[in-house]
Amino acid sequence: MSDHLTHFDASGQAHMVDVSAKAETHRRAIAQGRITMQAATFKKLSEGTAAKGDVLGIARLAGIMAAKQTGALIPLCHPIPLTRVTVEFATDPTTHSVACTATSETVGRTGVEMEALTATSVALLTIYDMLKAIDRGMVMDGIKLIEKHGGKSGSWVAGK
Amino acid sequence: MSDHLTHFDASGQAHMVDVSAKAETHRRAIAQGRITMQAATFKKLSEGTAAKGDVLGIARLAGIMAAKQTGALIPLCHPIPLTRVTVEFATDPTTHSVACTATSETVGRTGVEMEALTATSVALLTIYDMLKAIDRGMVMDGIKLIEKHGGKSGSWVAGK
Amino acid sequence: MSDHLTHFDASGQAHMVDVSAKAETHRRAIAQGRITMQAATFKKLSEGTAAKGDVLGIARLAGIMAAKQTGALIPLCHPIPLTRVTVEFATDPTTHSVACTATSETVGRTGVEMEALTATSVALLTIYDMLKAIDRGMVMDGIKLIEKHGGKSGSWVAGK
Amino acid sequence: MSDHLTHFDASGQAHMVDVSAKAETHRRAIAQGRITMQAATFKKLSEGTAAKGDVLGIARLAGIMAAKQTGALIPLCHPIPLTRVTVEFATDPTTHSVACTATSETVGRTGVEMEALTATSVALLTIYDMLKAIDRGMVMDGIKLIEKHGGKSGSWVAGK
Amino acid sequence: MSDHLTHFDASGQAHMVDVSAKAETHRRAIAQGRITMQAATFKKLSEGTAAKGDVLGIARLAGIMAAKQTGALIPLCHPIPLTRVTVEFATDPTTHSVACTATSETVGRTGVEMEALTATSVALLTIYDMLKAIDRGMVMDGIKLIEKHGGKSGSWVAGK
Amino acid sequence: MSDHLTHFDASGQAHMVDVSAKAETHRRAIAQGRITMQAATFKKLSEGTAAKGDVLGIARLAGIMAAKQTGALIPLCHPIPLTRVTVEFATDPTTHSVACTATSETVGRTGVEMEALTATSVALLTIYDMLKAIDRGMVMDGIKLIEKHGGKSGSWVAGK
Repeated sequence: MSDHLTHFDASGQAHMVDVSAKAETHRRAIAQGRITMQAATFKKLSEGTAAKGDVLGIARLAGIMAAKQTGALIPLCHPIPLTRVTVEFATDPTTHSVACTATSETVGRTGVEMEALTATSVALLTIYDMLKAIDRGMVMDGIKLIEKHGGKSGSWVAGK
Repeated sequence: MSDHLTHFDASGQAHMVDVSAKAETHRRAIAQGRITMQAATFKKLSEGTAAKGDVLGIARLAGIMAAKQTGALIPLCHPIPLTRVTVEFATDPTTHSVACTATSETVGRTGVEMEALTATSVALLTIYDMLKAIDRGMVMDGIKLIEKHGGKSGSWVAGK
Repeated sequence: MSDHLTHFDASGQAHMVDVSAKAETHRRAIAQGRITMQAATFKKLSEGTAAKGDVLGIARLAGIMAAKQTGALIPLCHPIPLTRVTVEFATDPTTHSVACTATSETVGRTGVEMEALTATSVALLTIYDMLKAIDRGMVMDGIKLIEKHGGKSGSWVAGK
Repeated sequence: MSDHLTHFDASGQAHMVDVSAKAETHRRAIAQGRITMQAATFKKLSEGTAAKGDVLGIARLAGIMAAKQTGALIPLCHPIPLTRVTVEFATDPTTHSVACTATSETVGRTGVEMEALTATSVALLTIYDMLKAIDRGMVMDGIKLIEKHGGKSGSWVAGK
Repeated sequence: MSDHLTHFDASGQAHMVDVSAKAETHRRAIAQGRITMQAATFKKLSEGTAAKGDVLGIARLAGIMAAKQTGALIPLCHPIPLTRVTVEFATDPTTHSVACTATSETVGRTGVEMEALTATSVALLTIYDMLKAIDRGMVMDGIKLIEKHGGKSGSWVAGK
Repeated sequence: MSDHLTHFDASGQAHMVDVSAKAETHRRAIAQGRITMQAATFKKLSEGTAAKGDVLGIARLAGIMAAKQTGALIPLCHPIPLTRVTVEFATDPTTHSVACTATSETVGRTGVEMEALTATSVALLTIYDMLKAIDRGMVMDGIKLIEKHGGKSGSWVAGK
């Protein structure tokens, strides 16, 4: 890995780094995060996904749509025509938490890590928004990149 | 606190809840979060804030600008004319982490919790983006509401 | 009703008309529209709402979010802080169609007709998008204002 | 044609479908729609296009600009770098209506039907906005895809 | 006038300054700017405004729409619900230039100078875009605030 | 150079011109502009860049982010996936002015002149915004294209 912060030029000024000469390759990134709530809140959420008041369905959509806004939100991110975005949830009754996994893909000149992380963050924020009327103390944790593939630097998998 | 999910109507369908009858009051929210990195990454970041390669300055701006996009990102959030947004950072050399605290305010009919949380999340995502060339394993944790004031439900402070 | 096109000044040039002197009143608008499809497509849609593949849930969200973008989409529309948006659907097995009704509200200086119409249009477009893989011939019809209330011109109800 | 709703995965959850493996081909779509108004309104509109108060010129621009926002408005649409957008109008004095035809093109991995339909819808909504001060009862009808070309599924023409 | 940069806090960090306590007053700003081109380009432009190829009509709309995006473009600007925007042009055959004057108004807690300046800049940029196929050497000059009214600091008029 | 305004079709109506058949080539554009202020304002700005209150750092970011919004701001501009954006400043104590130079690049079917000009304009507007509390009379001048490369028309350099 580089020890250079690519988002700064030689004089230390921020720029959107030049990727013109990079090859268009298939790139994929997976990110994860989790929101933990009170037992009663988790119960409410779980009932909703089964029947009505579909919190996770709405959070999924918010995450997917946010991935498309990544280039507008993160100052030095390149705008990227995404070819795929998925957002999945796993509920854990033991810890009263919901884990979110987002995958983003493109065929392009730069990676899509930020798109997967942005989808994860906004999906979790949307869960917070939907449930905050009954539980303001929810906490979002463990938001991180899980793996990324494609491009010159190849594959990277968390913890390896 | 309510035990009702206000973002759903009686039939369980999502809606942007009616706040027309609520009074315009001064509302304020504070949110927090943290990103943890390797010791070497933290060193790089710290050098940058002192001289050049100002990661935190860029993340602060990204957070402030994202607060203004909250209504577009979070599906059932009301669009709110914010009257103040601040984003502050505290670096902790012991844990190689940066804590972010965002404050949002408005004079309006509904709260600004989501604006403070969105500012925090996007500020942390931007730190990740700026440093990811040297450290892909950074983790964002502890993103939560710290306090909120104003409106019919009055003040709420985390842990109280 | 006026016989003057308010979006043009005396010399015929477009402008965003001055509403500074108008009172802030509670304003509400309801719009409607309909999308008609093949019998087989309608069957697919109906199954989805019951169990999985929730086309209407996604279209509802798209409509609500689009209402918030009205000021950016319609050139001479004033940006309005909406206080409420709802999008409802009624399915009609006889005509294989889905009717959409959108309501928008604000406390402000100008009406919210365009917000209700934009929510309706984008909700219908989203239904089209979700189903187009099996039926490209769907048609959107009858998109119109149903009623509007508030402001100097008071109430208006279609067909009255 | 498929009998599968591609915007849902095997478990019925919404996703932005993977188009990474699709070839970049020249794609084109044409959509249409119509707005019908009172005779007096139509007269006003017609005078405007001839001299000043150019309703259709403004609606054309709104449609073209909206086509570029399709990926942000329609939740599961891929963001697409459009290579061409046109919006044309035909006025019909007999029915006091304006027909709108929008064409969108790209060289990409997925179709541009939604871009043409979105351009059409927003162009018609803008006509409504410009004329609503004198006629709130206008109706938008017949919004549909006329033809689409390119991609694996090839050409499709309405009514054939 | 202040000698303090309000967009920075006591420690020199950027923030969106607190305007919660400011009164909602009627505020107005007027900005101006000019684009100068070759004689042949100016001739082309002038023909267009008379008959077809309406460069200035399109630039006017772009300026009005950009005013509504000011809060998203200028990092520390407050989002403001504008109550009026106008963009006017004056063509000068002697200097082959077009002068643009933009006016913005609101009833709010902070001024609308940036909205008027942004409308002016984007209107001029749009003229450049429309004519650049025949003249890449056009220059934009004299973009400045002409006057502003309302708020605690009252009226200010350029050159006085 | 053409003597035809490409943004209008044969009948004089605006359209987003067809670039489908153009080759994807490496394209680059450089634009420039300048903001002039009072001596005292310039002194304040200069102190800020050295220590705290980093006006130019914020303006740089605003310019880079605005370049990504060019397709949304300029009505007939094609949306372009930029591969590089830089914004640089040169301060001139003699004239109390800051010169801004923006470079934009893509590998695509159409040029990036508007992206460089938009970055320049918004960077200058942001400097104005940051300093306007102490100097409302600042003027932006000399905003123009300096050079552009790539595409069928090849290179163009101002003044040659």
